Amino acid sequence: MKKFEELDSLFHPKAAAVVGATESPFKHGNWYMRSILNRGFPKEHLYPINPNEKEVLGIKAYPRVQDVPEPLDYVVVAIPKKLIKEVVKDCVEAQVKFVMIFTSGFSESTSEREEGKKLEKELLEIIRGTKTRIVGPNGMGVYSFEGKLSYPYVYNPPQGGTVSFVSQSGGHTVSMASFADFWNNIRFSKMVSYGNGIDLEVTDYLEYFAEDPKTKVINIYVEGVRNGPRFFKTLKEATRIKPVVVWKGGWTAGGSRATLSHTGSLAGSNKIWSMVLKQAGAVQVYSMEELCDVTMAFLRLNPPKGVNTAIVGAGGGLSVVSTDALESAGLRTPPFSEKTREELGEIVPDVGTGISNPIDASYFVYYDLKMYIKILELVDEDPNIDLILLQHEVMWGDRNEELFKIVKEIRERLEKPLVIVLHPSSGPREYQPEMEAERLKIIKQYLNDGFLIYPSIPKASNSVFKVIQYYQFLKNREIQRPLKQHLILLE
Amino acid sequence: MKKFEELDSLFHPKAAAVVGATESPFKHGNWYMRSILNRGFPKEHLYPINPNEKEVLGIKAYPRVQDVPEPLDYVVVAIPKKLIKEVVKDCVEAQVKFVMIFTSGFSESTSEREEGKKLEKELLEIIRGTKTRIVGPNGMGVYSFEGKLSYPYVYNPPQGGTVSFVSQSGGHTVSMASFADFWNNIRFSKMVSYGNGIDLEVTDYLEYFAEDPKTKVINIYVEGVRNGPRFFKTLKEATRIKPVVVWKGGWTAGGSRATLSHTGSLAGSNKIWSMVLKQAGAVQVYSMEELCDVTMAFLRLNPPKGVNTAIVGAGGGLSVVSTDALESAGLRTPPFSEKTREELGEIVPDVGTGISNPIDASYFVYYDLKMYIKILELVDEDPNIDLILLQHEVMWGDRNEELFKIVKEIRERLEKPLVIVLHPSSGPREYQPEMEAERLKIIKQYLNDGFLIYPSIPKASNSVFKVIQYYQFLKNREIQRPLKQHLILLE
Repeated sequence: MKKFEELDSLFHPKAAAVVGATESPFKHGNWYMRSILNRGFPKEHLYPINPNEKEVLGIKAYPRVQDVPEPLDYVVVAIPKKLIKEVVKDCVEAQVKFVMIFTSGFSESTSEREEGKKLEKELLEIIRGTKTRIVGPNGMGVYSFEGKLSYPYVYNPPQGGTVSFVSQSGGHTVSMASFADFWNNIRFSKMVSYGNGIDLEVTDYLEYFAEDPKTKVINIYVEGVRNGPRFFKTLKEATRIKPVVVWKGGWTAGGSRATLSHTGSLAGSNKIWSMVLKQAGAVQVYSMEELCDVTMAFLRLNPPKGVNTAIVGAGGGLSVVSTDALESAGLRTPPFSEKTREELGEIVPDVGTGISNPIDASYFVYYDLKMYIKILELVDEDPNIDLILLQHEVMWGDRNEELFKIVKEIRERLEKPLVIVLHPSSGPREYQPEMEAERLKIIKQYLNDGFLIYPSIPKASNSVFKVIQYYQFLKNREIQRPLKQHLILLE
Repeated sequence: MKKFEELDSLFHPKAAAVVGATESPFKHGNWYMRSILNRGFPKEHLYPINPNEKEVLGIKAYPRVQDVPEPLDYVVVAIPKKLIKEVVKDCVEAQVKFVMIFTSGFSESTSEREEGKKLEKELLEIIRGTKTRIVGPNGMGVYSFEGKLSYPYVYNPPQGGTVSFVSQSGGHTVSMASFADFWNNIRFSKMVSYGNGIDLEVTDYLEYFAEDPKTKVINIYVEGVRNGPRFFKTLKEATRIKPVVVWKGGWTAGGSRATLSHTGSLAGSNKIWSMVLKQAGAVQVYSMEELCDVTMAFLRLNPPKGVNTAIVGAGGGLSVVSTDALESAGLRTPPFSEKTREELGEIVPDVGTGISNPIDASYFVYYDLKMYIKILELVDEDPNIDLILLQHEVMWGDRNEELFKIVKEIRERLEKPLVIVLHPSSGPREYQPEMEAERLKIIKQYLNDGFLIYPSIPKASNSVFKVIQYYQFLKNREIQRPLKQHLILLE
């Protein structure tokens, strides 16, 4: 596809330049050079552009993009606003494919909005009919693991991943890269922060990521779109191919006002956004945490057949509370089949533990791990059950390690998808900080071993439910009707 | 009031006994003795009851409660179920005021429910018309800071507090005592875990806490009530005097089934519960975390006049997201008045920061803390604003300390209530664990200094909104109508 190949060179440029590159260590032009080099972009194809520098970081500098001895795919522009028009004209002349304008103060500016809007129009006029496309302004640009591109502040992990993130906020890509790696072991193949998106906008990147074979799950943070119907159509196509998780910024009245001074976006009504996202089969989330949690479930969960969940572990009050949390997220905890209950009844001693569902297996975790395995096998065979949720508190000493080994062993034998929740310790308050540190460490251990694990039931059940919903939507999508009447309002 | 005095001796007993007290360090009878002594209860008024022991922990043991040389207010019973009836008869004979039955396996038992129900009826028959009341069975009993009572597992802080907690779950009181202290600096005056509550139930304890001068905020965890109309009437009276925060366990279909095997409770429909709680002016919460967060707001927030919130701090994307989170919780972020915006415009340099509301003051936190104070003073004077929410990321080095000092200084000058949110660091992923530890430390520092601080906007805004709602309810309660038609369903 022509379109795909066009954008592919944004994420895998052969040659790139930084306008405003400088030796001064306190300027973004310097940081962009460093970030791109750190990510491993070939030195011989990266060009500092600055009429006042001979070289930057040991690389020969050129006064203008036109002077560079090879065609440029990607040019970062980090210079004052008043010089932007000239540089974009230069880029058009040099047949640069993509100009990424980091500079801000355009239509998002409260004090200079009108002037900023005018300048945005002029930039579009300059590139009209040419081969040059604009990323930004007020964006941070492209991170690409395989394309060896990056930008300042963002975390650069040693390995790439299978998630790609289109974001109207640069800050969110920076936070997301750190959080998602730390809490969810999620890494990115590509990210793009496109700010005001006056030329290329969310839809263009979405279209590319939908086709990109390196991308398994698409993440979107969007405040507004220009062409609603095109966005809807593209999104609907994308969700046929892979999950798209969308965090819509500015979905309340106040938040919507705030988007105006962030990216100059008109945010539109949340009701309509939610309907459109639902209709297109996208998964809507409401925070960065939720974006990470749901994405992790897409990456790690074999889609369960339905919402019927067995809760195994923990005791009394926690069973009630977990069931409430789980059911309020949309999952269900049906009673086990009669056969399962009979078989459980035979092996579970009467220690006041519930055996219907939830099953309180905390006793076995402490005293009889072999019996614990047996319980899980019985639950796994129950026809009423689609997935199993194990919940435990973090424990003292090497108990956590023992349980981890058992759970690893069980995983091999179970047919149904497994989700784990590791609760904080409810033990003596004096040891709380140490036990919290221990809990994070153990969660990480499970993550590193490929488990789907969460620090709380609400996070686990919300994420799992949204994954199930997506796959059910895929199944039923033929019967969906279009939602044309609302699309006009998105524009 | 007679009723108040009656229950007062449960929380401040002159003499207490533990039936089943033993030297064996692996029995609850031993742990109860230790817990009560550790809390400081006078040795000379605590009596181990055990026909097979001469003394327990150096205290003379008696074969039966009737043999104790003084009247007993509180007797803990931690012995096998088959001996319970005999002991309760003994207690009646000895005119014990309160028997707390720790033993479980009654109507909550899946395997022996019918037998358990029968036994519960027999126990009620035994105490009918006598001066003896039952706490439990399947409960953990009473914690009382001033009364020097406690029970196994629960955290015993060196200072008491002003919150009292009635809970149908013993585990929740244990977890709550730790969590609330650790995360929210909340301590308890009294707690009671009453399990199946066959005699005294939530309403009795609520009635007492409503009048108890040591209790400023009442916390409730309840799965079911026996006498719905009495509960409603008592709750309505209690909320006139002090805030009552209610966590209803078993509010989903599955959760409701789970309560049956936890405390033998019939949980009732959540819709009706929610209506009843609302109508009575109680604040409903859905998790232990929320119970802690909302209670903390009641303890630390001067009630704002309304929901109009100024958000100060952090930048771009975070402003949008915070506003969304805040407004979706029910608060509002109106634009500042024209006067405020003009004055802000004069002092805030054009660095692409929004000045309408939210105001992005991250620049000043880094470069000009004096200007930051000035901004807050302007916002404080704005007639559109009812409360101020400061939000920041945890920072590197001694910046946190500097900001803390400034915020302390500002607090003295501000008229409007102040809420603080300290976000995780979005900095390099490599330092995430250290920065998280630092964040918890700093949150604790603010807590210790009396601030209302939360780790996230949703927690902060939900808690603050519920406090405002309560005070608005108090104002408008005259116009509320009774909800008699639903009460029958609660029974």
